[in-house]
Amino acid sequence: MADQDAQSSVGIRPPALPVLRWGELPEGPVLVLLDQTRLPAEEAELVCTDVPALVQAIRTLAVRGAPLLGITGAYGVALAAVRGDDVAEAAELLERARPTAVNLGYGVRRAAEAYQAAMEGDPERAAAVALAEARALHREDAEASGRMARYGLALLDELLPGGGHRLLTHCNTGALVSGGEGTAFAVALGAHREGRLRRLWVDETRPLLQGARLTAYEAARNGMPYSLLVDSAAGSLFAAGEVDAVIIGADRIAADGSVANKVGSYPLAVLAKYHHVPFIVVAPTTTVDLDTADGASITVEERPGNEVTELTFSQIGAAGEDVGGLLVAPAGTPAYNPAFDITPPELVTAIVTEEGAVSPVTGVGLAELCARSSQVTIS
Amino acid sequence: MADQDAQSSVGIRPPALPVLRWGELPEGPVLVLLDQTRLPAEEAELVCTDVPALVQAIRTLAVRGAPLLGITGAYGVALAAVRGDDVAEAAELLERARPTAVNLGYGVRRAAEAYQAAMEGDPERAAAVALAEARALHREDAEASGRMARYGLALLDELLPGGGHRLLTHCNTGALVSGGEGTAFAVALGAHREGRLRRLWVDETRPLLQGARLTAYEAARNGMPYSLLVDSAAGSLFAAGEVDAVIIGADRIAADGSVANKVGSYPLAVLAKYHHVPFIVVAPTTTVDLDTADGASITVEERPGNEVTELTFSQIGAAGEDVGGLLVAPAGTPAYNPAFDITPPELVTAIVTEEGAVSPVTGVGLAELCARSSQVTIS
Repeated sequence: MADQDAQSSVGIRPPALPVLRWGELPEGPVLVLLDQTRLPAEEAELVCTDVPALVQAIRTLAVRGAPLLGITGAYGVALAAVRGDDVAEAAELLERARPTAVNLGYGVRRAAEAYQAAMEGDPERAAAVALAEARALHREDAEASGRMARYGLALLDELLPGGGHRLLTHCNTGALVSGGEGTAFAVALGAHREGRLRRLWVDETRPLLQGARLTAYEAARNGMPYSLLVDSAAGSLFAAGEVDAVIIGADRIAADGSVANKVGSYPLAVLAKYHHVPFIVVAPTTTVDLDTADGASITVEERPGNEVTELTFSQIGAAGEDVGGLLVAPAGTPAYNPAFDITPPELVTAIVTEEGAVSPVTGVGLAELCARSSQVTIS
Repeated sequence: MADQDAQSSVGIRPPALPVLRWGELPEGPVLVLLDQTRLPAEEAELVCTDVPALVQAIRTLAVRGAPLLGITGAYGVALAAVRGDDVAEAAELLERARPTAVNLGYGVRRAAEAYQAAMEGDPERAAAVALAEARALHREDAEASGRMARYGLALLDELLPGGGHRLLTHCNTGALVSGGEGTAFAVALGAHREGRLRRLWVDETRPLLQGARLTAYEAARNGMPYSLLVDSAAGSLFAAGEVDAVIIGADRIAADGSVANKVGSYPLAVLAKYHHVPFIVVAPTTTVDLDTADGASITVEERPGNEVTELTFSQIGAAGEDVGGLLVAPAGTPAYNPAFDITPPELVTAIVTEEGAVSPVTGVGLAELCARSSQVTIS
């Protein structure tokens, strides 16, 4: 309570974002998502009644962000189970919806395994078990957010004593990607609540503008001091000494500490190295994939070229109207559009998880954090 | 002629772009510009009847690109002189229209000085002298393009023997910025005509998308093999070894070889350094400002934040209709929007001018090239 009082002195917190919830309608169960493609113009709900609808929502990025995809995947399995659909088939569809996000597969498998284990009894009970597992993952993820924020703040204290942090972030890693307040964004938000954030530099994050649309939205909602910039203007900030640390999330972390994250992360890591600025990755241990040896083994999703050659609704939905796909390049222009890039461990100052931070980043250090996480889950 | 035949064997060349021309209408003289904010959707002409209209065209980037701004500035002075307007005032207005582009001031001063020198005689003759000076600058710039292309190709030969070049470029540096075929783009085009270009990687160049709208347009028009990417995806190309050289233009080059160019150039220079890839700047000697000692002395233009927070007509005019300014970030979002960044000489492999290349980049080497250029002009 003392802690809450101390925090509320900084300002009134906005209500939690209705990012994802399970619903029971007369027609049957549903998963209700905040349609992130409509933000920041409107907080519209997307009601998914079955797994194909959910897969579509994942593919179009209506729901996105590594930890939230895990939660979504688990609820998706529960949805199939409660509806009496083929759970194994649903799990496969969900897991394939986005190839790079390891958390998606983790959430799907966790609910599917709980379901399978309970199938000895009646299917209805097994479905309830799957739903309980999804809810457990949801809760655990919210708790993990809080723990990542605390470990992240402690790391900032150590790396940047004195506060007044100017943090640069890329893509969106806040409440919109998580059961809680997010990953990297949760650390910046924690710094803000403690009066230690001087500025959050927000990369707009082309092509889908998650920084401009979502991170700016979350920063404004929380009353944080922030400025938006085109991705390539980050270089000018580094050169001017205006960045104290880069803080980003991750979509998959290989066993050697290579980080797959939104395209544009790797150039920031190179800039940070060149300017002797810490580059910090914040992600739950569920993002670590010990079965993937290194960066070269990570499959990077290539997304459609029209995300680059056209401005589509998911980029410019702010006015509410559907403006369709407006060509910015000549018709027929070929595009190179990788969704992610890979940052090797030697460019990462620290990886912060809900089990603590590892710095310097080594495979052994990462494996230890993951083992700690497994023990907690088993106990 | 033999040269022309050899080149035509590669394919039919498209007609020259009607980028800028002087016109004499019954109502008076005009400067007719290709409105670059409407490209690639349509080739619309913008008719400027006086200097305030021309200043507006410069500010809104209807006409842009360092060398072309110089030509435009010179014609602007001639326009004021022929109309009988206050030439000194017009020159001042023109010179201030964009602070970073040194060529603009160069072109303005050159025509204004020619006008002043001829004012001994009658004003009508002085106006004709100013116009002749603008035309001379226009012609010289076209010739300079050809010479830069030849010096640039020779440099590529030396740095990357064997051909099959994969060149990465940023912003737009082709016929749309020049009296001829441009600066950096002219080198890539030359490589293409000689069958040595494997791929031109085109950065889209946020916020105004000159790469997507203009460079892709020029590359397509010339039948070049090219691919468009968001600026921050360049990192992935470097990491995959897919970039043999970066080749860009410049808006101002300081006496020490520091290069001011479109924001996003500096991060490419850092990436190029990290990956041991040559970083080549192509610009006429008129871009070199020996009165500016170093990068820190260059004034970098800060442009309006709404170029980042909104998608405006100049970004999404492709469909022809005016879609106004669509908010992509929450209303009131503050933005950091420098138009240029500064790349220090130690990150530049070579600067190629119409008088030859300097590599490594030193103040002495640059000054020598500029002296050679002055001799040519004087003789």
